[in-house]
Amino acid sequence: MNKITDVVMKPLEKSIYLKPYTMHFTQNGQKKTWDLLGIHDSVAIIIYNKLRKVLILVKQFRPAVYLGTIDPQDRQIDHPIDTAKYPPENGITIELCAGIVDKQLSLAEIAREEILEECGYDVPVGSLELIGSYRSGVGTSASVQTAYYCEVTDAMKVTQGGGTDDELIDVVEMTVAEVKDYVTQRDVVNSPPSFLFGIYWFLLNKSSKY
Amino acid sequence: MNKITDVVMKPLEKSIYLKPYTMHFTQNGQKKTWDLLGIHDSVAIIIYNKLRKVLILVKQFRPAVYLGTIDPQDRQIDHPIDTAKYPPENGITIELCAGIVDKQLSLAEIAREEILEECGYDVPVGSLELIGSYRSGVGTSASVQTAYYCEVTDAMKVTQGGGTDDELIDVVEMTVAEVKDYVTQRDVVNSPPSFLFGIYWFLLNKSSKY
Repeated sequence: MNKITDVVMKPLEKSIYLKPYTMHFTQNGQKKTWDLLGIHDSVAIIIYNKLRKVLILVKQFRPAVYLGTIDPQDRQIDHPIDTAKYPPENGITIELCAGIVDKQLSLAEIAREEILEECGYDVPVGSLELIGSYRSGVGTSASVQTAYYCEVTDAMKVTQGGGTDDELIDVVEMTVAEVKDYVTQRDVVNSPPSFLFGIYWFLLNKSSKY
Repeated sequence: MNKITDVVMKPLEKSIYLKPYTMHFTQNGQKKTWDLLGIHDSVAIIIYNKLRKVLILVKQFRPAVYLGTIDPQDRQIDHPIDTAKYPPENGITIELCAGIVDKQLSLAEIAREEILEECGYDVPVGSLELIGSYRSGVGTSASVQTAYYCEVTDAMKVTQGGGTDDELIDVVEMTVAEVKDYVTQRDVVNSPPSFLFGIYWFLLNKSSKY
């Protein structure tokens, strides 16, 4: 997964995933603008293997995170990124299993598909516990993300997971103790706030039951 | 705060806040691209008034959230948004006090300034408890967000808060019971995952002490 080479930044071309706009509006009589993005709605799932008492998480190379590790002066347009100075491993995150909503399926069906595609567990839709929905961001992009909780057993594991097409996703397992150490580390946690929310939700609502 | 009119979307012009790129790279021999954004690092603070036993939060109109409430077919470029059909109040979020890192100050100093500017409490830097840092996003933008916890008393309240310049921020107070109801509601929580993380962190680590 980590063999990343020939990294270079280009200006954004027309994108099907990322639609940058400026919103113009008047607030209390004052004209304002705000730069922002339209992005897809998404689902995220906290998966717990209750047999082996581990959380099922995913690891992948995230270009946006990798960019965030690079000094702005070292990421000029059309200048190759120095992958010796900035190891691409720094762009590998640990996240909840998740996916964008781009199909005519219920949110729970999409969540079920992501669990199968990314983690290899075939779970009944009815086993997904809805946690709730929230805005995936507020500053520059905001769509609805819906979170679920799902318990699995090894009997439900039907493939190795890893994603579809050219996705390269590693499934990782963490015990509750390991995930507690991970989220309370002093280094930057290479995970998004939705992951931290999911883990703290689990610690508050579920982990004491096991 | 809610008097929002004349809303129209335009293509993104040159922006100082939002820098869209496409990253080109080779992963395991396969050429790939990813559309993404460079954004500022930030701080966020969970503030608890221990005298009155309320969390101190902020409410504001967020263009990106408002856009997220509008059906894509009703947000075409240069077509005014129908604010009767889509009330701008839908774009008002409840968040942790937060701010971007755009000054030559320590992160704790920036957090202290945001608490004063947005919420009106003048707190000693030394009273800020570092929770940790994480990636503010992973899909399209990722910078480092650092979270703090801070306890305040009414004696530290020196202004009404509300932000600087043309910021329009309302300070809101919620009891622990109110915030629990808010984060577990069945409607979409009009708050980002960093807020949910902060609240669950507080519920797990602090609220039982009061």
